[in-house]
Amino acid sequence: MINKRGFASDNNSGVHPEIMKAMIDANEGHTIAYGDDAYTERAKQKLYDHFGDDIDIYFVFIGTAANVLGLNAATSSWNSVICAETSHINVDECGAPEKFNGFKLLSVETPDGKLSVELIQKHMHGFGFEHHSQPKVISITQATELGTVYTVDEIKALSDFAHQNNMYVHMDGARIANAAVKLGLGFKEFTKDVGVDILSFGGTKNGMMYGEAILFLNKDLGENFKYVRKQGMQLASKMRFISAQFERYLSDDLWYRNAKHSNKMAQLLADQIKEIPQIKITQEVDANGVFAIVPSREIIEELKMEYFFYDWDESKNEVRWMTSFDTQEEDIHKFVDLIKKKLTT
Amino acid sequence: MINKRGFASDNNSGVHPEIMKAMIDANEGHTIAYGDDAYTERAKQKLYDHFGDDIDIYFVFIGTAANVLGLNAATSSWNSVICAETSHINVDECGAPEKFNGFKLLSVETPDGKLSVELIQKHMHGFGFEHHSQPKVISITQATELGTVYTVDEIKALSDFAHQNNMYVHMDGARIANAAVKLGLGFKEFTKDVGVDILSFGGTKNGMMYGEAILFLNKDLGENFKYVRKQGMQLASKMRFISAQFERYLSDDLWYRNAKHSNKMAQLLADQIKEIPQIKITQEVDANGVFAIVPSREIIEELKMEYFFYDWDESKNEVRWMTSFDTQEEDIHKFVDLIKKKLTT
Amino acid sequence: MINKRGFASDNNSGVHPEIMKAMIDANEGHTIAYGDDAYTERAKQKLYDHFGDDIDIYFVFIGTAANVLGLNAATSSWNSVICAETSHINVDECGAPEKFNGFKLLSVETPDGKLSVELIQKHMHGFGFEHHSQPKVISITQATELGTVYTVDEIKALSDFAHQNNMYVHMDGARIANAAVKLGLGFKEFTKDVGVDILSFGGTKNGMMYGEAILFLNKDLGENFKYVRKQGMQLASKMRFISAQFERYLSDDLWYRNAKHSNKMAQLLADQIKEIPQIKITQEVDANGVFAIVPSREIIEELKMEYFFYDWDESKNEVRWMTSFDTQEEDIHKFVDLIKKKLTT
Amino acid sequence: MINKRGFASDNNSGVHPEIMKAMIDANEGHTIAYGDDAYTERAKQKLYDHFGDDIDIYFVFIGTAANVLGLNAATSSWNSVICAETSHINVDECGAPEKFNGFKLLSVETPDGKLSVELIQKHMHGFGFEHHSQPKVISITQATELGTVYTVDEIKALSDFAHQNNMYVHMDGARIANAAVKLGLGFKEFTKDVGVDILSFGGTKNGMMYGEAILFLNKDLGENFKYVRKQGMQLASKMRFISAQFERYLSDDLWYRNAKHSNKMAQLLADQIKEIPQIKITQEVDANGVFAIVPSREIIEELKMEYFFYDWDESKNEVRWMTSFDTQEEDIHKFVDLIKKKLTT
Repeated sequence: MINKRGFASDNNSGVHPEIMKAMIDANEGHTIAYGDDAYTERAKQKLYDHFGDDIDIYFVFIGTAANVLGLNAATSSWNSVICAETSHINVDECGAPEKFNGFKLLSVETPDGKLSVELIQKHMHGFGFEHHSQPKVISITQATELGTVYTVDEIKALSDFAHQNNMYVHMDGARIANAAVKLGLGFKEFTKDVGVDILSFGGTKNGMMYGEAILFLNKDLGENFKYVRKQGMQLASKMRFISAQFERYLSDDLWYRNAKHSNKMAQLLADQIKEIPQIKITQEVDANGVFAIVPSREIIEELKMEYFFYDWDESKNEVRWMTSFDTQEEDIHKFVDLIKKKLTT
Repeated sequence: MINKRGFASDNNSGVHPEIMKAMIDANEGHTIAYGDDAYTERAKQKLYDHFGDDIDIYFVFIGTAANVLGLNAATSSWNSVICAETSHINVDECGAPEKFNGFKLLSVETPDGKLSVELIQKHMHGFGFEHHSQPKVISITQATELGTVYTVDEIKALSDFAHQNNMYVHMDGARIANAAVKLGLGFKEFTKDVGVDILSFGGTKNGMMYGEAILFLNKDLGENFKYVRKQGMQLASKMRFISAQFERYLSDDLWYRNAKHSNKMAQLLADQIKEIPQIKITQEVDANGVFAIVPSREIIEELKMEYFFYDWDESKNEVRWMTSFDTQEEDIHKFVDLIKKKLTT
Repeated sequence: MINKRGFASDNNSGVHPEIMKAMIDANEGHTIAYGDDAYTERAKQKLYDHFGDDIDIYFVFIGTAANVLGLNAATSSWNSVICAETSHINVDECGAPEKFNGFKLLSVETPDGKLSVELIQKHMHGFGFEHHSQPKVISITQATELGTVYTVDEIKALSDFAHQNNMYVHMDGARIANAAVKLGLGFKEFTKDVGVDILSFGGTKNGMMYGEAILFLNKDLGENFKYVRKQGMQLASKMRFISAQFERYLSDDLWYRNAKHSNKMAQLLADQIKEIPQIKITQEVDANGVFAIVPSREIIEELKMEYFFYDWDESKNEVRWMTSFDTQEEDIHKFVDLIKKKLTT
Repeated sequence: MINKRGFASDNNSGVHPEIMKAMIDANEGHTIAYGDDAYTERAKQKLYDHFGDDIDIYFVFIGTAANVLGLNAATSSWNSVICAETSHINVDECGAPEKFNGFKLLSVETPDGKLSVELIQKHMHGFGFEHHSQPKVISITQATELGTVYTVDEIKALSDFAHQNNMYVHMDGARIANAAVKLGLGFKEFTKDVGVDILSFGGTKNGMMYGEAILFLNKDLGENFKYVRKQGMQLASKMRFISAQFERYLSDDLWYRNAKHSNKMAQLLADQIKEIPQIKITQEVDANGVFAIVPSREIIEELKMEYFFYDWDESKNEVRWMTSFDTQEEDIHKFVDLIKKKLTT
């Protein structure tokens, strides 16, 4: 079977060889299940090295769970969580946040997937009024679902505003590595240092097989969280295989190398697409996604036949092209050539 | 680091080399995420080969989720589920069944972890009376948490009774392979053929890294289940790595070889323990667990220092010793020697 | 203590004397609790007389519960419900719909509180895609929270569209009597006859003390609902006192007399306000609410001191004035005089 | 229609005339809805007079909600609540506690409906172990569902034990007035003074129409509870009519007069029944319920035809006879005569 690389999603890619090797190496004898093992201890230490010791760390299977359970720790069911209309928690988790947490999501339309103090004002009311769900968390995605990246100042402005209003800041960092590369900063500098309270720290989209980490940068929120994770059906028995991945992912800058390459491939794709006048790129290419409007539905469908990808907004012929750690320059060139060919046919 | 094999749990073991190889082989290029891939198709086919085509199959990450979500498909929140007091859903899932499904668990004390029509009668009332949670599912574990195995007739009696009362039968098959070996039967013969409606088909405890399958043997119950799995935070993005494990697990009788070995090791341990008069085995050794009463707390603690295992009932000095696919005869002998030594000191 | 009539809300009013008398009359001896009594039978018959026999009826305590539990019957937790941004279920129930039902609310901005096929199109996608909550219900309010009333054709258009898309229509009829008066139609003509599946039939805002009815006009949806009501904490023990209210409310056109009067008072208020050039009425006055923009915050606060009412949109100095079954012409005149006086000071 | 008094349940009775008069008196003009009114203030003051000022009070519609929401304030979904197997929360609320709170109920068999430190020991384990629901509340019923009453010392022993284990005590006081009469004590003496943290203070079974109070005797637990009540669909709009009932109920010892009479009638019934050798009373008659074994099913059914009541344990021909505030001595005599007649036929 030939598994052709495409531009559908960074989770269509496989596992980075260094990660796979770490998993193989971890497959030795018996270890205590459920996380009380040396692999998990070492993986946590790697995260402490990045974020400082005064945080609380919990590994789970997937990003949806990282978001849903992380938000659980900061909310009661009578709270609401403010998020971008395009956010993963709002449109791609089949209502898991509402189901598990019982709260209300308040979505906000944005031009580029990024919230701002101004944009969320419409939901900042009803405090103390028992008929209204009480706003408690601002949830942002970094990098966003639209391939854009918040600056440090943008995050700080939201955090300051949140904390002034007795609220928390949650960050969905499914693609946090791509954001860190773009910003040229360490993880801590654009999260903990500027007031992010809860972080879904992703790995699967950047070369891991499975596993995400919930980081309570505001450590108080992690109290009793082990019960939430277990009841949330996210406590892995053979935890060592998640931990071994994270340990490697955070060693020798593997996370950085992967994300840097992925971002670079998106930039290369965008640069070449910009030379095609019939196609319009619709968002800043800050991370590993390129959003573009293609002239016709026919061309989109023909392109998909050879390199699968997803529509973003069918009504506008807007598509999404994602690169990943294993995208090759050659893939970009062939794809762009194909686009050009289709456009001239 | 040396990971010493012990008798704590079959999920303290690692991954069978054939499974690990299959995962490595699956790590090639890109595939569609979330299960619409060839690996998943082939893994399902392996299960169809065992159970027939008229079933519905969903892979999830862990056994807790397989149980909780499988039960979701058969219940409304105003239902109740009858289970053994010792069942995993009752005591080892931190209330996940109640939290996600909103229903009531009705537990039953049993001598050996097995339900019977007689034992569950105490909960068979209140039908049609709106003040009472309505009994809807009988949930059994095969092999049980006490290492015993239901006979085909025992399962059939419960299924017939359930169906006569407009109820379903759920089987937690975290150790179904060990039960199949004990019974000398194919999976279908003691599940679908005798009326089991929903099956949590386990793999992790018998040589897989992660991944369980929910099998709707009563196919109607699987309708719309894809939404339940997604909302239940159990849809894997890189699904191929679960599927590749199941494909291999069900090839060349790997599941059978592993379980047969594991059962044999438990039998060996039990046989040797029976020769030690101070220790009393408390349950039938049908699968891969040995339950025994040890003379003193001191000895238990000393044994744990060298071969970790868990207490079962501290008040009685009853302990649980589990074997797994990678237990070696040598492990048994050394462990029994150690016990004898401690008893004579 | 003097309880002065104001314009805050129709539920600030008390109980109509005929209703109170019916409650006193029902207070005789013992009856079976929980609804299996003659009062409840007669109250249901009154509703059958209006809607036909092929419906299912359940009494509950309040409108929030009528909405939340009624929607429960038509949804799974992985569904979504489309509603106006101003709807009671979206902004005035503290997240009860999400908490109890686990589903997602998809809100739509509207100019006048009314949904239309065009307005809801933005949420009509993702069908069959497991990552998205599946749209299952269109929920409308009649009369709306903005005092407007859907025409029969407007409701039918939404119902037809819903049913074409395998969805249901829910109507929050907390003020359905006011809508019926406005339309000059029987209840059935603008609900069951045009495709409404579930109706919260309100009484409390129109002269009852407490009690609302959930009507499954699509009778299939009422199956097993008695368990939902009980588990939803809405099964009254001394049910006869809710039923006696409904029986009277639906006798001798009491519901009609009350609503007609209330609407007439709102019309009178609107007519007089229209003669005050500094105040702008912002919505059609179809039922018993008048929405208006008042020149200054100071005047609003001064008016509230004498006749309490609520702000609607503080940023615009928009207020809401509600009339009720017991509003007197004299109240209107005095209030308008006060407004004029404040405006000229 | 003639509503004959029977022995089915204290909630088959109607409303005490003094209560009804208070409701009529409250029906005057407009008051702010949802509890911010003078009636509610006065009703709360009556409760402060009994329990002291340092408590938090919330009125709701029914006892099921008082229990479920009160427990919500003291628990997380990963907790468990220990209760008697016969408790209302366990068998008569259709799973509402589990549905709304997501937690696990751990039931205990008891001879007389009363928990004790000894009886609950079986559930006091697994603390700190994330696989187990964490025990957090001991819930007792006073008077119990079996008509027995805890002594002050019995309650104190449970409270002390609970608090030593970092747990809370909840009391379902649906029939707390009957218990107070039996004990000859004020409410506070056998609740707040001996460590009860949360109290469902009932009124409906003792002469009110509807309405129960949740009392956070441990005031900290009431923080933010207004949101829980609203999201729990238990915030009454025309709250004054619940409050007016409580105000009257707690004035001129009405609660005491009613409960004293009801208890006396049960005692009278029990005394007379004891003289009938064929009938065996099975529980202490501490409050207003008499539990008895009747010789045959035929007699039970014949008695029910004339004075309706409920079976308690059909397998033993055990029945429950409840008296209420309006039971007349004559009712008892006629009923006993009937029993004697049936027994001699």
